[in-house]
Amino acid sequence: MKALVTGASGFAGRHLVAHLTEAGDSVIACDRAGVDAVDIVDRDAVHQAFARFQPEVVYHLAALTHVGDSWNEPQAVLRVNVEGTLNVLDAAQAAGVRRVLVVGSAEEYGRAGTEYPLREDAPLLPNSPYAATKVAASYLALQAYLGAGLETVRVRAFNHTGPGQTDRFLIPALARRIAEAERDGHDHITVGSLDPVRDINDVRDIVRAYRLAVLEGEPGAVYNVCSGAGHSVGEIAAALLARARVRLRLVQDPNLVRPVDVPSLIGDASRLRAATKWQPAFTLEATLVAVLDEARANAAR
Amino acid sequence: MKALVTGASGFAGRHLVAHLTEAGDSVIACDRAGVDAVDIVDRDAVHQAFARFQPEVVYHLAALTHVGDSWNEPQAVLRVNVEGTLNVLDAAQAAGVRRVLVVGSAEEYGRAGTEYPLREDAPLLPNSPYAATKVAASYLALQAYLGAGLETVRVRAFNHTGPGQTDRFLIPALARRIAEAERDGHDHITVGSLDPVRDINDVRDIVRAYRLAVLEGEPGAVYNVCSGAGHSVGEIAAALLARARVRLRLVQDPNLVRPVDVPSLIGDASRLRAATKWQPAFTLEATLVAVLDEARANAAR
Repeated sequence: MKALVTGASGFAGRHLVAHLTEAGDSVIACDRAGVDAVDIVDRDAVHQAFARFQPEVVYHLAALTHVGDSWNEPQAVLRVNVEGTLNVLDAAQAAGVRRVLVVGSAEEYGRAGTEYPLREDAPLLPNSPYAATKVAASYLALQAYLGAGLETVRVRAFNHTGPGQTDRFLIPALARRIAEAERDGHDHITVGSLDPVRDINDVRDIVRAYRLAVLEGEPGAVYNVCSGAGHSVGEIAAALLARARVRLRLVQDPNLVRPVDVPSLIGDASRLRAATKWQPAFTLEATLVAVLDEARANAAR
Repeated sequence: MKALVTGASGFAGRHLVAHLTEAGDSVIACDRAGVDAVDIVDRDAVHQAFARFQPEVVYHLAALTHVGDSWNEPQAVLRVNVEGTLNVLDAAQAAGVRRVLVVGSAEEYGRAGTEYPLREDAPLLPNSPYAATKVAASYLALQAYLGAGLETVRVRAFNHTGPGQTDRFLIPALARRIAEAERDGHDHITVGSLDPVRDINDVRDIVRAYRLAVLEGEPGAVYNVCSGAGHSVGEIAAALLARARVRLRLVQDPNLVRPVDVPSLIGDASRLRAATKWQPAFTLEATLVAVLDEARANAAR
C-alpha cells in the first residue's frame, strides 16, 4: 500500500510513519522541510506532490495543533488547518487517491456539556480557534465525500502523548519539570489548573487507529479515537510524581492556567471498535513512564 | 443603532441596507468597491474599518454565494467565506462590537435526508464547496461566542429571490427567459432539472429577519430563516409561465442540469418565530411577479 503522510515530521506523524513502515506500507513522508518538502498551504505544491507520488492512501496530519497558540494567530491556524485540508482534498481528488484520512480533534466537541463519554453525534461546540478550524476541516472532508465522491474518513483524536512530544504540551512539560527537579535537587514542580479532565491515549495506539480507520472504516464516517477513561490533570500529575526519584511537591502557578479551557473531554470509541476491532495496547502507566524516561534522558544531556 | 453591513452591494446586502435605513439605523455599507471599500479578505483593512466606524452591530453578508461556481474555485470561496468571516469576527472583537450576525445557508444541511421541514439541529451534510464554507464560517462564529464572548447570532437563510437578483440564479434566469421570449416572439423557454424542491422566500422578508435575529435572538444560537413551504423547480416555472403574456412551453435542457444538487431544502423557522415574532410578509406569487416585472423592464432596455 502506497501511503502519503502530511505532517510527517510532527509528533503523531513520526509515529505514524514508523507504524506504516512496520506494517509493510510504502511511505511518502511529506512535511514543510526535508526530502519530500511540501508546504500544505501551497496549493500547486500539494497538487504536484500528489501527482508525482500517486499515493493510494493519504494520511492528512499537517496542522498547527497547539490550542493556546491558536488564540494568538487564528489566521495562520485557519490557513494551515482549513485551507491546507482543502488543498489536500482537491489534490487527492485530482490524483485519484483511493482514501484520505483527515485527522480531527476531541477539541471539536468543546463545551459539549455534561454527557460523557462523548459519542460522535454529540454537538460540536468549539471553544478555541484551533477547535473551530478542526470542525471546519472535518466538514470540508465530509463535503468532498458527499459532493465529489472522494472516500474520506475522519477521526477525532482525543489527547495523546508519548515519546517525542514537545514539552509545550502538558504531560511532557510535567515530565521535564520532574526530570529537572531530580537532576537539580528541587523540592517541587509547578502546574496550572488541576481540574481539566482528559481522555489520555498513547500516540502509538492513536496512529494504529488511524491506519485501521482509513483502511477499514466507512467513507464519510467520523470516528472517535480514545480510551473512554477520563483523568484530571491533578491525577496525571500525581501519577507522574509517584514515579519521581525524589519527593516533590506540586505547586499551582496561576500563570500556567489557561483563561478558557474545556473542562472535560472523554470519548466513546464504540464506533471505531465496531468497525475495526481497534483496542489500545498501552496502559496510561506505560505511557507516562515512557514520557518520563525520555525527559530524564533529555535532562541528562 | 449604528450598523455596519459587509457585502452591502450584494443582492441581499442592498435590500438590508434599505431596510436598516428605513428602520432608522445609521448604516455603514461596506463592500469591495464604493465609498467605504473594504476587501473582506484583507485582515488589516477589516480591522481598520471596524476601528474607524465603531459599529454597534455588524451584519456579515460578504460571501461568494453561487453554489455552482464554488466547484470551480473552492479556494477563492474558502478565502472569502471562511477567512473573511474570521477577519470580521476578530475585528468585531477588537472594536467592541455588541452583536454580529453571520449569515449561513440552507445549503449547510445539504443531503440531510428525508425529514422535512429541517430544524436547526438536523445534521449538516454539505454537498458543495460553497455549503462546506458556510458550515465552517458558522462554527467560527459559534467559537467566537463560546471562546471569546463575542455575541454572534447565526442564521441559515433558505433560498431567496426578489428584485435585484442576478440572473445567474434560477428564478431571475427563468424570468429573463420569459421576458425575452415575450419580446422576441419565442414559443418556449429552457429549464434544467424540474425536481429540486426549495423553500423560496422574498429577500425583503429575509433581511427583515436578519435585523430581528441579531437584535432579539440569543447569542450563540442559530436560526433558520424560511417559509416552511417547499416548491419544486417545475412548480416555480409553471407559476412564472402562467404569468407570461404569451403562451410558452417549458423545454428541458440537459446542459442546465447541475451534476450534483440537493434534492430538497425545506426549513422550519419555529425557533426564529418564537424568538422574534418574525413572519414573512410577501406571498410567493407577489415575489415572482416582482422578479418578472423587473426582467421585463430589463428586456425592454
